[in-house]
Amino acid sequence: MKKIDLNCDMGESFGAWIMGMDGEVIPYVTSANIACGYHAGDAHVMYKTVKLAKDHGVGVGAHPGYPDLVGFGRRNMDCTPEEVRDYVAYQIGAMKAFCAIHGVPLQHVKPHGSLYNMSVGNEPLIRAIVEAIAGVDKSVIYLALGGAQEPLVTKIAREAGIRVAFEAFPDRAYTPEGKLAPRSLPGAVIKDPKVAAERALRMAKEGKIITTEGSVLEMQIDTICVHGDNPSAVELVKNIRSAIEGEGIAVEPMGKFIK
Amino acid sequence: MKKIDLNCDMGESFGAWIMGMDGEVIPYVTSANIACGYHAGDAHVMYKTVKLAKDHGVGVGAHPGYPDLVGFGRRNMDCTPEEVRDYVAYQIGAMKAFCAIHGVPLQHVKPHGSLYNMSVGNEPLIRAIVEAIAGVDKSVIYLALGGAQEPLVTKIAREAGIRVAFEAFPDRAYTPEGKLAPRSLPGAVIKDPKVAAERALRMAKEGKIITTEGSVLEMQIDTICVHGDNPSAVELVKNIRSAIEGEGIAVEPMGKFIK
Amino acid sequence: MKKIDLNCDMGESFGAWIMGMDGEVIPYVTSANIACGYHAGDAHVMYKTVKLAKDHGVGVGAHPGYPDLVGFGRRNMDCTPEEVRDYVAYQIGAMKAFCAIHGVPLQHVKPHGSLYNMSVGNEPLIRAIVEAIAGVDKSVIYLALGGAQEPLVTKIAREAGIRVAFEAFPDRAYTPEGKLAPRSLPGAVIKDPKVAAERALRMAKEGKIITTEGSVLEMQIDTICVHGDNPSAVELVKNIRSAIEGEGIAVEPMGKFIK
Amino acid sequence: MKKIDLNCDMGESFGAWIMGMDGEVIPYVTSANIACGYHAGDAHVMYKTVKLAKDHGVGVGAHPGYPDLVGFGRRNMDCTPEEVRDYVAYQIGAMKAFCAIHGVPLQHVKPHGSLYNMSVGNEPLIRAIVEAIAGVDKSVIYLALGGAQEPLVTKIAREAGIRVAFEAFPDRAYTPEGKLAPRSLPGAVIKDPKVAAERALRMAKEGKIITTEGSVLEMQIDTICVHGDNPSAVELVKNIRSAIEGEGIAVEPMGKFIK
Repeated sequence: MKKIDLNCDMGESFGAWIMGMDGEVIPYVTSANIACGYHAGDAHVMYKTVKLAKDHGVGVGAHPGYPDLVGFGRRNMDCTPEEVRDYVAYQIGAMKAFCAIHGVPLQHVKPHGSLYNMSVGNEPLIRAIVEAIAGVDKSVIYLALGGAQEPLVTKIAREAGIRVAFEAFPDRAYTPEGKLAPRSLPGAVIKDPKVAAERALRMAKEGKIITTEGSVLEMQIDTICVHGDNPSAVELVKNIRSAIEGEGIAVEPMGKFIK
Repeated sequence: MKKIDLNCDMGESFGAWIMGMDGEVIPYVTSANIACGYHAGDAHVMYKTVKLAKDHGVGVGAHPGYPDLVGFGRRNMDCTPEEVRDYVAYQIGAMKAFCAIHGVPLQHVKPHGSLYNMSVGNEPLIRAIVEAIAGVDKSVIYLALGGAQEPLVTKIAREAGIRVAFEAFPDRAYTPEGKLAPRSLPGAVIKDPKVAAERALRMAKEGKIITTEGSVLEMQIDTICVHGDNPSAVELVKNIRSAIEGEGIAVEPMGKFIK
Repeated sequence: MKKIDLNCDMGESFGAWIMGMDGEVIPYVTSANIACGYHAGDAHVMYKTVKLAKDHGVGVGAHPGYPDLVGFGRRNMDCTPEEVRDYVAYQIGAMKAFCAIHGVPLQHVKPHGSLYNMSVGNEPLIRAIVEAIAGVDKSVIYLALGGAQEPLVTKIAREAGIRVAFEAFPDRAYTPEGKLAPRSLPGAVIKDPKVAAERALRMAKEGKIITTEGSVLEMQIDTICVHGDNPSAVELVKNIRSAIEGEGIAVEPMGKFIK
Repeated sequence: MKKIDLNCDMGESFGAWIMGMDGEVIPYVTSANIACGYHAGDAHVMYKTVKLAKDHGVGVGAHPGYPDLVGFGRRNMDCTPEEVRDYVAYQIGAMKAFCAIHGVPLQHVKPHGSLYNMSVGNEPLIRAIVEAIAGVDKSVIYLALGGAQEPLVTKIAREAGIRVAFEAFPDRAYTPEGKLAPRSLPGAVIKDPKVAAERALRMAKEGKIITTEGSVLEMQIDTICVHGDNPSAVELVKNIRSAIEGEGIAVEPMGKFIK
């Protein structure tokens, strides 16, 4: 039976500020990327969000970002690979504390925002992230962007002895080379929920994406990235999940099937 | 053979700012209380300081503080026990990441500054700290102030299934009740290195302290807190260690003998 | 003609996090207490919020707090008067920069959260706040809690050569001594919007408050503190304003009538 | 009589961390670039450093940086011009508060670290910085790198109605085009104090720099940037000043002679 994971950013509240509809979206996803306090999240939000994930049988992931709270980790920062390694290790460790408290394993690590974007296809940064994950806990999966960088990421992760999972974005346009179309291009973000749902289904069922030039891209897709920012996003996740399950595909946390 | 530990705050540099003479004092101590990024320390400083401790066979401790960088964690903050639990858990987890990277266990947790002071004899805060330690890793020792609060701390720690070690300060005056004399009182801080060295030796040898009123206080002393802020502090640590060893007492990391 | 001001906290968003309904409530208030980046707000939020206030003819106030972003400045912190003076001065200066850019004067300074609460009746903290205001700009009004502390605050402010305005809270219970009833007491916060509106009207019209014991308290009330956190709070402000104006009382920024 | 200014970074301590030998170097310089709390400095350090500058008749400058405390503002950050404008305005305002308290004018603004480097020759960033300065206080001088970007900076500053001063670095190599040689090149930083002193003298006396290719570069040099990080740096500043004064050139704060 074919399997797919649905991952979603969570735990992005900070102190008195609330962000995201974690409680509404969590019944429909299988993996949570939880902020670790550098770009969003705080110790108490982490405590609560790990518990929320546990209560719903959702895999807990660390979502480390740059130390840029006011910029939400979305601005490129010229950090050295050593800085990235230590920032990622620190945040993984902090998340593992709350996993221990709630008695669940840390399932995966997915870099956030600019750290994610800057690391795509960037060997020194991929090595830094992998070194952090492997150094802290070899059972933890590295969640990375699928497509063009797959061979590079796979090689580095395997050498370090960790597993890797690849994700795709149903609401983002892809180039024929298997890269995300830059957000500055028109059409880079797909706003029609029907189109996004169709793309998600094709990703889950066939591992295929229609590119910006109409060609068909095939890639390894272990998990599909969805969002829980607002009511219509939550509705879209619900629709994506039921469409995928309607095709007889199992929606499960990646930790259960990634090898 | 009698055993004692010497613990010292370390890893208090932050970014471009250097603090403490970690490299100079580390040959003479057996346990390091390493800052975790809330009041001092950063991810890279933690990486380096855990390695330094490992290279010298020194036990690694987490030294969690309040989230008050500009105040160095020295100002009382009215945090709830839940906040304290989560802040301590977060910082322990972050430190454990660097322990894992360097292949050493986390030996102990010693709260820093105002978190330490506010927790003395304060049952809700002691419970919050113990809950964090026990929740994250039951093999880790809670390092607390010896004296008046010993029965309370011991009871709470035992119930939670963790070990506790008690420390004494050779450079601080004690009341006959077994409490630290408030720093605002004249003579609360002992500045004469000879007197401090004598007090340290009596602590290690006999578990005894001469109080502010001249009486003799007996308490459990597993580890003596020393400092590495400046050259004369380092010199004092060196003298304390050789005096203690001269009496045939073994100076060892607390993890080796605390039960 | 009798005059009153309505003041409201604003500019409490931070980076990607939105807080408050500033755009909805601003048509009904006359003074804005704008966060300055220590406990909430950031440089860009300040830029936008000062412009919003200017566009509505609302008096701009600095709303300085403790340096405790994750705690939203709501936790007591044991800062020295010198620290408070410098924190307040820093935040006033930052706010004045955006006032200069938008060509409006800084009208007032109202401490936020725990800094506000800790300063009530506390001479060293009142002096520290007044010293900061008077040191930076003697034309700026100090906005303080009315009631029991009025003579003390007035004396300190006058000696320093600055004006002071006193405020009252229609949604808070007062003791017969003219102090806010502690939030821990039942009934300390008045949740019925009708009752709050009636209290606001009595404050504006007669300068009177019914206390927790039913007695009538008379005090100087220059401005009434209202909230814009949610739709019903905004509705309440609208009702309060129209009720006050219905009595022939002018609702104006305090800077226009405080002497 | 020819005039020159000597400017030096100061006020870079933060909380419990000390940086720089401000008290030792200040007798020899005429302008201080004082950190404003984003990358270094805090409210109390600013209070003390403005006072120190005043006591020595040294011109007070704001030294705004990126909001990157752990990176000391030295890492490139991909901020928008609007973000830069607001960050600079905020920090200028905060510094002006302490100038007001101590009764001295804010003389100049010099961006710090990566904000300085990224702005060189970068029209949108120069415009953002100039907009902040002109918006907050048109009497304040913009201190920028002399050489290749001089016409661009001058044009933008004049249009905004503010003055500009240009600086040169005696310890940095220059290309024949009038740019700083990148630090990654060998010889980019001149370590021999005698050579640095000679270069400083030629800058002050003739406005000339010997480039990496041996050619002579002429540029407007209003102020020479010196350092107070360590005893030998302080010694160098002392030597530079006495050499310049020995040639009959007046060493004065730039505010006294920049038009």
